[in-house]
Amino acid sequence: MKLYGAALSPYSARVMLAIRAKGLDIPLTDPPGGQKSAAFLAINPLGKTPVLEVGGAHIIESAVICEFLEDAFPTPPLLPGEPLARAAQRTVTRLLDLYVLPPLLSLMAQTGDAAAAAARLSDLTRGLDALETVVGRGPPPPAADGVLGLADCALAPTLIFLERFLPRYTPQDMLEGRPALAARWAAYADHPLVTPVALAMETALEAFRQRRG
Amino acid sequence: MKLYGAALSPYSARVMLAIRAKGLDIPLTDPPGGQKSAAFLAINPLGKTPVLEVGGAHIIESAVICEFLEDAFPTPPLLPGEPLARAAQRTVTRLLDLYVLPPLLSLMAQTGDAAAAAARLSDLTRGLDALETVVGRGPPPPAADGVLGLADCALAPTLIFLERFLPRYTPQDMLEGRPALAARWAAYADHPLVTPVALAMETALEAFRQRRG
Repeated sequence: MKLYGAALSPYSARVMLAIRAKGLDIPLTDPPGGQKSAAFLAINPLGKTPVLEVGGAHIIESAVICEFLEDAFPTPPLLPGEPLARAAQRTVTRLLDLYVLPPLLSLMAQTGDAAAAAARLSDLTRGLDALETVVGRGPPPPAADGVLGLADCALAPTLIFLERFLPRYTPQDMLEGRPALAARWAAYADHPLVTPVALAMETALEAFRQRRG
Repeated sequence: MKLYGAALSPYSARVMLAIRAKGLDIPLTDPPGGQKSAAFLAINPLGKTPVLEVGGAHIIESAVICEFLEDAFPTPPLLPGEPLARAAQRTVTRLLDLYVLPPLLSLMAQTGDAAAAAARLSDLTRGLDALETVVGRGPPPPAADGVLGLADCALAPTLIFLERFLPRYTPQDMLEGRPALAARWAAYADHPLVTPVALAMETALEAFRQRRG
Protein backbone atom coordinates (compact mmCIF):
# COMPACT_ATOMS: atom_id res chain seq x y z
CA MET A 1 0.00 0.00 0.00
CA LYS A 2 0.96 3.62 -0.46
CA LEU A 3 -0.76 6.90 0.20
CA TYR A 4 -0.72 9.61 -2.44
CA GLY A 5 -0.95 12.93 -0.69
CA ALA A 6 0.75 16.01 0.70
CA ALA A 7 2.04 16.41 4.25
CA LEU A 8 0.51 19.89 4.50
CA SER A 9 -3.03 18.77 3.67
CA PRO A 10 -5.31 18.25 6.68
CA TYR A 11 -6.98 15.46 4.69
CA SER A 12 -3.70 13.61 4.12
CA ALA A 13 -2.61 14.28 7.71
CA ARG A 14 -5.84 12.68 8.95
CA VAL A 15 -5.06 9.48 7.10
CA MET A 16 -1.41 9.54 8.22
CA LEU A 17 -2.64 9.82 11.82
CA ALA A 18 -4.97 6.84 11.36
CA ILE A 19 -2.09 4.87 9.79
CA ARG A 20 0.16 5.67 12.76
CA ALA A 21 -2.63 4.93 15.24
CA LYS A 22 -3.05 1.51 13.59
CA GLY A 23 0.70 0.88 13.80
CA LEU A 24 0.85 0.48 9.99
CA ASP A 25 3.77 1.41 7.80
CA ILE A 26 2.37 3.06 4.66
CA PRO A 27 4.50 5.71 2.97
CA LEU A 28 3.14 9.12 1.97
CA THR A 29 4.16 9.89 -1.60
CA ASP A 30 3.52 12.60 -4.19
CA PRO A 31 0.84 11.82 -6.79
CA PRO A 32 2.43 10.68 -10.09
CA GLY A 33 2.88 13.78 -12.26
CA GLY A 34 1.04 15.95 -9.74
CA GLN A 35 -2.62 16.04 -8.69
CA LYS A 36 -3.89 17.33 -12.02
CA SER A 37 -1.82 15.08 -14.32
CA ALA A 38 -3.57 12.71 -16.73
CA ALA A 39 -1.98 9.78 -14.88
CA PHE A 40 -3.43 10.90 -11.56
CA LEU A 41 -6.81 11.93 -12.99
CA ALA A 42 -7.12 8.34 -14.25
CA ILE A 43 -6.77 7.29 -10.61
CA ASN A 44 -8.99 9.98 -9.10
CA PRO A 45 -11.17 11.92 -11.55
CA LEU A 46 -11.45 14.71 -8.97
CA GLY A 47 -7.67 15.29 -9.03
CA LYS A 48 -7.59 15.34 -5.25
CA THR A 49 -5.48 13.67 -2.62
CA PRO A 50 -5.24 11.65 -0.45
CA VAL A 51 -5.68 8.42 -2.41
CA LEU A 52 -4.77 5.05 -0.92
CA GLU A 53 -3.38 2.48 -3.34
CA VAL A 54 -4.26 -1.05 -2.27
CA GLY A 55 -3.01 -3.73 -4.65
CA GLY A 56 -4.30 -2.50 -8.02
CA ALA A 57 -7.22 -0.60 -6.47
CA HIS A 58 -7.43 3.03 -5.34
CA ILE A 59 -9.55 4.47 -2.56
CA ILE A 60 -10.31 8.19 -2.80
CA GLU A 61 -11.60 10.61 -0.12
CA SER A 62 -9.93 10.75 3.29
CA ALA A 63 -13.03 9.81 5.30
CA VAL A 64 -13.56 6.72 3.13
CA ILE A 65 -9.88 5.76 3.43
CA CYS A 66 -10.08 6.02 7.24
CA GLU A 67 -13.14 3.75 7.34
CA PHE A 68 -11.31 1.31 5.04
CA LEU A 69 -8.33 1.21 7.40
CA GLU A 70 -10.72 0.50 10.28
CA ASP A 71 -12.41 -2.30 8.32
CA ALA A 72 -9.21 -3.87 6.95
CA PHE A 73 -7.04 -3.48 10.08
CA PRO A 74 -9.42 -3.67 13.03
CA THR A 75 -6.72 -3.68 15.73
CA PRO A 76 -6.34 -1.33 17.51
CA PRO A 77 -9.87 -0.08 16.87
CA LEU A 78 -10.24 3.65 16.09
CA LEU A 79 -14.02 3.43 16.39
CA PRO A 80 -15.81 2.16 19.50
CA GLY A 81 -18.14 -0.85 19.30
CA GLU A 82 -21.40 0.76 20.37
CA PRO A 83 -23.45 2.17 17.43
CA LEU A 84 -24.27 5.54 19.05
CA ALA A 85 -20.64 6.03 20.05
CA ARG A 86 -19.54 5.22 16.50
CA ALA A 87 -22.01 7.80 15.21
CA ALA A 88 -20.55 10.42 17.57
CA GLN A 89 -17.07 9.83 16.10
CA ARG A 90 -18.32 10.02 12.53
CA THR A 91 -20.32 13.19 13.18
CA VAL A 92 -17.13 15.07 14.08
CA THR A 93 -15.44 14.07 10.81
CA ARG A 94 -18.56 14.93 8.85
CA LEU A 95 -18.88 18.42 10.35
CA LEU A 96 -15.23 19.12 9.64
CA ASP A 97 -15.58 18.05 6.02
CA LEU A 98 -18.81 19.87 5.26
CA TYR A 99 -18.80 22.96 7.42
CA VAL A 100 -15.31 23.70 8.81
CA LEU A 101 -12.52 22.73 6.43
CA PRO A 102 -14.04 24.20 3.21
CA PRO A 103 -14.33 27.78 4.58
CA LEU A 104 -11.04 27.42 6.50
CA LEU A 105 -9.06 26.39 3.44
CA SER A 106 -10.80 28.99 1.24
CA LEU A 107 -9.92 31.65 3.75
CA MET A 108 -6.27 30.66 3.70
CA ALA A 109 -6.17 30.48 -0.10
CA GLN A 110 -6.92 34.22 -0.04
CA THR A 111 -8.70 34.23 -3.37
CA GLY A 112 -11.45 36.80 -3.85
CA ASP A 113 -12.01 40.11 -2.16
CA ALA A 114 -12.53 41.26 1.42
CA ALA A 115 -16.28 40.61 1.24
CA ALA A 116 -15.62 37.01 0.14
CA ALA A 117 -13.13 36.57 2.98
CA ALA A 118 -15.66 37.93 5.49
CA ALA A 119 -18.32 35.51 4.20
CA ARG A 120 -15.90 32.60 4.62
CA LEU A 121 -14.98 33.69 8.12
CA SER A 122 -18.69 33.83 8.93
CA ASP A 123 -19.19 30.30 7.49
CA LEU A 124 -16.19 29.08 9.49
CA THR A 125 -17.57 30.61 12.68
CA ARG A 126 -20.92 28.89 12.16
CA GLY A 127 -19.21 25.57 11.42
CA LEU A 128 -17.03 25.85 14.51
CA ASP A 129 -20.03 26.68 16.70
CA ALA A 130 -21.73 23.46 15.58
CA LEU A 131 -18.49 21.51 15.97
CA GLU A 132 -18.05 22.84 19.51
CA THR A 133 -21.51 21.53 20.46
CA VAL A 134 -20.92 18.14 18.84
CA VAL A 135 -17.45 17.68 20.34
CA GLY A 136 -18.77 18.82 23.72
CA ARG A 137 -21.44 16.07 23.66
CA GLY A 138 -18.86 13.40 22.90
CA PRO A 139 -16.93 11.49 21.63
CA PRO A 140 -14.58 11.20 24.61
CA PRO A 141 -11.05 12.65 24.32
CA PRO A 142 -8.12 10.40 23.36
CA ALA A 143 -7.84 7.40 25.68
CA ALA A 144 -5.15 7.28 28.35
CA ASP A 145 -3.38 4.50 26.45
CA GLY A 146 -2.67 7.01 23.73
CA VAL A 147 -4.86 5.49 21.02
CA LEU A 148 -6.82 8.03 19.00
CA GLY A 149 -10.35 7.78 17.63
CA LEU A 150 -11.17 8.52 13.99
CA ALA A 151 -12.68 11.80 15.23
CA ASP A 152 -9.31 12.75 16.73
CA CYS A 153 -7.51 11.83 13.52
CA ALA A 154 -9.69 14.32 11.64
CA LEU A 155 -9.85 16.95 14.38
CA ALA A 156 -6.17 17.22 15.29
CA PRO A 157 -4.93 18.41 11.85
CA THR A 158 -7.84 20.86 11.65
CA LEU A 159 -6.91 22.34 15.03
CA ILE A 160 -3.29 22.60 13.91
CA PHE A 161 -4.50 24.70 10.97
CA LEU A 162 -6.72 26.82 13.22
CA GLU A 163 -4.13 27.46 15.90
CA ARG A 164 -0.82 27.43 14.07
CA PHE A 165 -1.61 28.56 10.51
CA LEU A 166 -4.81 30.62 10.55
CA PRO A 167 -3.48 33.36 12.90
CA ARG A 168 -1.53 34.74 9.90
CA TYR A 169 -4.88 35.48 8.24
CA THR A 170 -7.14 36.64 11.05
CA PRO A 171 -6.44 38.06 14.52
CA GLN A 172 -9.40 36.14 15.98
CA ASP A 173 -8.53 33.18 18.25
CA MET A 174 -10.93 30.58 16.94
CA LEU A 175 -10.79 28.45 20.11
CA GLU A 176 -11.74 31.33 22.41
CA GLY A 177 -15.20 30.70 23.83
CA ARG A 178 -15.08 27.11 22.56
CA PRO A 179 -13.92 25.12 25.61
CA ALA A 180 -14.58 21.65 24.16
CA LEU A 181 -12.35 22.36 21.17
CA ALA A 182 -9.74 24.04 23.37
CA ALA A 183 -9.63 20.94 25.60
CA ARG A 184 -9.02 18.78 22.54
CA TRP A 185 -6.24 21.05 21.38
CA ALA A 186 -4.61 20.73 24.80
CA ALA A 187 -4.95 16.94 24.65
CA TYR A 188 -3.33 16.77 21.22
CA ALA A 189 -0.47 19.20 21.92
CA ASP A 190 1.94 16.63 23.33
CA HIS A 191 0.26 13.51 22.04
CA PRO A 192 2.90 11.06 20.78
CA LEU A 193 0.93 10.24 17.62
CA VAL A 194 -0.04 13.82 16.79
CA THR A 195 3.36 15.45 17.37
CA PRO A 196 5.20 13.95 14.36
CA VAL A 197 2.26 14.64 12.03
CA ALA A 198 2.06 18.24 13.24
CA LEU A 199 5.80 18.62 12.68
CA ALA A 200 5.51 17.25 9.13
CA MET A 201 2.70 19.71 8.44
CA GLU A 202 4.70 22.67 9.74
CA THR A 203 7.80 21.65 7.79
CA ALA A 204 5.69 21.35 4.63
CA LEU A 205 4.12 24.77 5.22
CA GLU A 206 7.56 26.33 5.63
CA ALA A 207 8.75 24.72 2.38
CA PHE A 208 5.60 25.91 0.61
CA ARG A 209 6.18 29.48 1.81
CA GLN A 210 9.80 29.46 0.68
CA ARG A 211 8.83 28.15 -2.77
CA ARG A 212 6.25 30.89 -3.09
CA GLY A 213 8.84 33.46 -1.95
CA MET B 1 -37.06 6.02 17.20
CA LYS B 2 -38.26 8.75 14.88
CA LEU B 3 -36.74 10.62 11.99
CA TYR B 4 -37.05 14.38 11.82
CA GLY B 5 -36.99 15.38 8.20
CA ALA B 6 -38.84 16.34 5.04
CA ALA B 7 -40.05 13.94 2.36
CA LEU B 8 -38.74 16.23 -0.39
CA SER B 9 -35.17 16.31 0.88
CA PRO B 10 -32.78 13.90 -0.86
CA TYR B 11 -30.98 13.57 2.49
CA SER B 12 -34.15 12.51 4.34
CA ALA B 13 -35.17 10.27 1.41
CA ARG B 14 -31.82 8.49 1.65
CA VAL B 15 -32.43 7.61 5.28
CA MET B 16 -36.04 6.59 4.58
CA LEU B 17 -34.73 4.24 1.88
CA ALA B 18 -32.23 2.69 4.30
CA ILE B 19 -35.02 2.33 6.90
CA ARG B 20 -37.23 0.55 4.33
CA ALA B 21 -34.32 -1.59 3.10
CA LYS B 22 -33.74 -2.70 6.71
CA GLY B 23 -37.43 -3.49 7.14
CA LEU B 24 -37.66 -1.02 10.03
CA ASP B 25 -40.69 1.03 10.95
CA ILE B 26 -39.49 4.53 11.84
CA PRO B 27 -41.85 7.44 11.12
CA LEU B 28 -40.74 10.58 9.28
CA THR B 29 -41.90 13.65 11.19
CA ASP B 30 -41.52 17.43 10.95
CA PRO B 31 -38.87 18.96 13.22
CA PRO B 32 -40.47 20.48 16.34
CA GLY B 33 -41.18 24.15 15.58
CA GLY B 34 -39.42 23.91 12.22
CA GLN B 35 -35.74 23.45 11.34
CA LYS B 36 -34.65 26.85 12.64
CA SER B 37 -36.64 26.86 15.91
CA ALA B 38 -34.81 27.12 19.23
CA ALA B 39 -36.15 23.66 20.14
CA PHE B 40 -34.69 22.10 17.03
CA LEU B 41 -31.42 24.08 17.15
CA ALA B 42 -30.90 22.59 20.62
CA ILE B 43 -31.07 19.18 18.91
CA ASN B 44 -29.00 20.07 15.85
CA PRO B 45 -27.01 23.31 16.05
CA LEU B 46 -26.85 23.33 12.24
CA GLY B 47 -30.64 23.52 11.98
CA LYS B 48 -30.65 20.80 9.36
CA THR B 49 -32.56 17.60 8.85
CA PRO B 50 -32.61 14.62 8.84
CA VAL B 51 -32.02 13.88 12.51
CA LEU B 52 -32.65 10.44 13.99
CA GLU B 53 -33.94 10.37 17.56
CA VAL B 54 -32.80 7.24 19.38
CA GLY B 55 -33.94 7.09 22.99
CA GLY B 56 -32.82 10.46 24.35
CA ALA B 57 -30.00 10.81 21.81
CA HIS B 58 -29.98 12.48 18.41
CA ILE B 59 -27.89 11.57 15.40
CA ILE B 60 -27.38 14.32 12.82
CA GLU B 61 -26.19 14.09 9.19
CA SER B 62 -27.77 11.58 6.81
CA ALA B 63 -24.55 9.68 6.02
CA VAL B 64 -23.89 9.20 9.75
CA ILE B 65 -27.49 8.08 10.35
CA CYS B 66 -27.20 5.48 7.56
CA GLU B 67 -24.00 4.07 9.07
CA PHE B 68 -25.73 3.97 12.46
CA LEU B 69 -28.63 1.98 11.01
CA GLU B 70 -26.12 -0.44 9.49
CA ASP B 71 -24.30 -0.81 12.84
CA ALA B 72 -27.42 -1.09 15.00
CA PHE B 73 -29.53 -3.24 12.64
CA PRO B 74 -27.06 -5.38 10.71
CA THR B 75 -29.68 -7.54 8.94
CA PRO B 76 -30.16 -7.26 6.02
CA PRO B 77 -26.73 -5.70 5.44
CA LEU B 78 -26.62 -2.58 3.25
CA LEU B 79 -22.84 -2.68 3.10
CA PRO B 80 -20.88 -5.71 1.85
CA GLY B 81 -18.36 -7.45 4.11
CA GLU B 82 -15.18 -6.93 2.12
CA PRO B 83 -13.31 -3.70 3.04
CA LEU B 84 -12.66 -2.54 -0.55
CA ALA B 85 -16.30 -3.16 -1.50
CA ARG B 86 -17.43 -1.20 1.55
CA ALA B 87 -15.18 1.67 0.49
CA ALA B 88 -16.74 1.62 -3.01
CA GLN B 89 -20.20 2.06 -1.48
CA ARG B 90 -19.07 4.88 0.78
CA THR B 91 -17.27 6.70 -2.02
CA VAL B 92 -20.55 7.10 -3.91
CA THR B 93 -22.26 8.70 -0.91
CA ARG B 94 -19.28 10.92 -0.30
CA LEU B 95 -19.13 12.22 -3.87
CA LEU B 96 -22.84 12.97 -3.79
CA ASP B 97 -22.52 14.92 -0.55
CA LEU B 98 -19.44 16.93 -1.44
CA TYR B 99 -19.59 17.44 -5.20
CA VAL B 100 -23.07 16.70 -6.57
CA LEU B 101 -25.86 17.61 -4.16
CA PRO B 102 -24.55 21.05 -3.08
CA PRO B 103 -24.44 22.49 -6.63
CA LEU B 104 -27.64 20.63 -7.60
CA LEU B 105 -29.64 22.05 -4.69
CA SER B 106 -28.13 25.53 -5.14
CA LEU B 107 -29.11 25.45 -8.79
CA MET B 108 -32.69 24.57 -7.92
CA ALA B 109 -32.90 27.21 -5.18
CA GLN B 110 -32.39 29.77 -7.99
CA THR B 111 -30.71 32.31 -5.79
CA GLY B 112 -28.15 34.58 -7.40
CA ASP B 113 -27.76 35.66 -11.00
CA ALA B 114 -27.20 33.86 -14.29
CA ALA B 115 -23.43 33.80 -13.79
CA ALA B 116 -23.88 32.12 -10.41
CA ALA B 117 -26.25 29.56 -11.96
CA ALA B 118 -23.73 28.83 -14.72
CA ALA B 119 -20.98 28.29 -12.14
CA ARG B 120 -23.19 25.86 -10.24
CA LEU B 121 -24.06 23.97 -13.41
CA SER B 122 -20.35 23.72 -14.15
CA ASP B 123 -19.67 22.41 -10.61
CA LEU B 124 -22.53 19.92 -10.99
CA THR B 125 -21.16 18.72 -14.33
CA ARG B 126 -17.73 18.15 -12.82
CA GLY B 127 -19.23 16.32 -9.85
CA LEU B 128 -21.35 14.11 -12.09
CA ASP B 129 -18.35 13.26 -14.27
CA ALA B 130 -16.46 12.02 -11.20
CA LEU B 131 -19.57 10.19 -9.96
CA GLU B 132 -19.99 8.47 -13.34
CA THR B 133 -16.43 7.12 -13.10
CA VAL B 134 -16.84 5.97 -9.51
CA VAL B 135 -20.24 4.33 -10.11
CA GLY B 136 -18.86 2.71 -13.29
CA ARG B 137 -16.05 1.08 -11.31
CA GLY B 138 -18.45 -0.35 -8.76
CA PRO B 139 -20.31 -0.85 -6.47
CA PRO B 140 -22.55 -3.41 -8.21
CA PRO B 141 -26.16 -2.42 -8.97
CA PRO B 142 -28.98 -3.44 -6.59
CA ALA B 143 -29.00 -7.21 -5.98
CA ALA B 144 -31.62 -9.39 -7.65
CA ASP B 145 -33.26 -10.02 -4.27
CA GLY B 146 -34.19 -6.36 -4.22
CA VAL B 147 -31.97 -5.27 -1.32
CA LEU B 148 -30.24 -1.94 -1.84
CA GLY B 149 -26.75 -0.89 -0.83
CA LEU B 150 -26.08 2.32 1.10
CA ALA B 151 -24.75 3.75 -2.18
CA ASP B 152 -28.13 3.07 -3.81
CA CYS B 153 -29.96 4.68 -0.89
CA ALA B 154 -28.00 7.89 -1.49
CA LEU B 155 -27.92 7.69 -5.29
CA ALA B 156 -31.60 6.97 -6.01
CA PRO B 157 -33.01 10.21 -4.49
CA THR B 158 -30.28 12.21 -6.23
CA LEU B 159 -31.19 10.68 -9.59
CA ILE B 160 -34.86 11.44 -8.91
CA PHE B 161 -33.86 15.10 -8.48
CA LEU B 162 -31.72 15.04 -11.61
CA GLU B 163 -34.28 13.35 -13.85
CA ARG B 164 -37.63 14.44 -12.47
CA PHE B 165 -37.02 17.87 -10.89
CA LEU B 166 -33.96 19.46 -12.51
CA PRO B 167 -35.41 19.52 -16.10
CA ARG B 168 -37.51 22.51 -15.00
CA TYR B 169 -34.28 24.44 -14.48
CA THR B 170 -32.01 23.33 -17.31
CA PRO B 171 -32.72 21.72 -20.70
CA GLN B 172 -29.60 19.54 -20.39
CA ASP B 173 -30.21 15.81 -19.75
CA MET B 174 -27.68 15.15 -17.01
CA LEU B 175 -27.58 11.38 -17.62
CA GLU B 176 -26.76 11.72 -21.33
CA GLY B 177 -23.23 10.48 -21.94
CA ARG B 178 -23.15 8.96 -18.45
CA PRO B 179 -24.08 5.30 -19.04
CA ALA B 180 -23.25 4.03 -15.54
CA LEU B 181 -25.61 6.57 -13.95
CA ALA B 182 -28.26 5.93 -16.60
CA ALA B 183 -28.09 2.18 -15.86
CA ARG B 184 -28.66 2.92 -12.16
CA TRP B 185 -31.59 5.13 -12.97
CA ALA B 186 -33.11 2.29 -15.03
CA ALA B 187 -32.52 -0.16 -12.16
CA TYR B 188 -34.23 2.15 -9.65
CA ALA B 189 -37.23 3.09 -11.83
CA ASP B 190 -39.43 0.16 -10.83
CA HIS B 191 -37.59 -0.91 -7.71
CA PRO B 192 -40.10 -1.83 -4.99
CA LEU B 193 -38.16 0.04 -2.29
CA VAL B 194 -37.45 3.14 -4.37
CA THR B 195 -40.93 3.62 -5.85
CA PRO B 196 -42.77 4.68 -2.66
CA VAL B 197 -39.93 7.03 -1.66
CA ALA B 198 -39.94 8.62 -5.13
CA LEU B 199 -43.71 9.04 -4.92
CA ALA B 200 -43.43 10.71 -1.50
CA MET B 201 -40.80 13.10 -2.90
CA GLU B 202 -42.97 14.01 -5.88
CA THR B 203 -46.04 14.55 -3.72
CA ALA B 204 -44.02 16.79 -1.40
CA LEU B 205 -42.66 18.77 -4.34
CA GLU B 206 -46.17 19.31 -5.67
CA ALA B 207 -47.37 20.51 -2.25
CA PHE B 208 -44.36 22.83 -2.01
CA ARG B 209 -45.14 24.33 -5.41
CA GLN B 210 -48.79 24.91 -4.51
CA ARG B 211 -47.83 26.58 -1.23
CA ARG B 212 -45.45 28.84 -3.09
CA GLY B 213 -48.18 29.58 -5.65
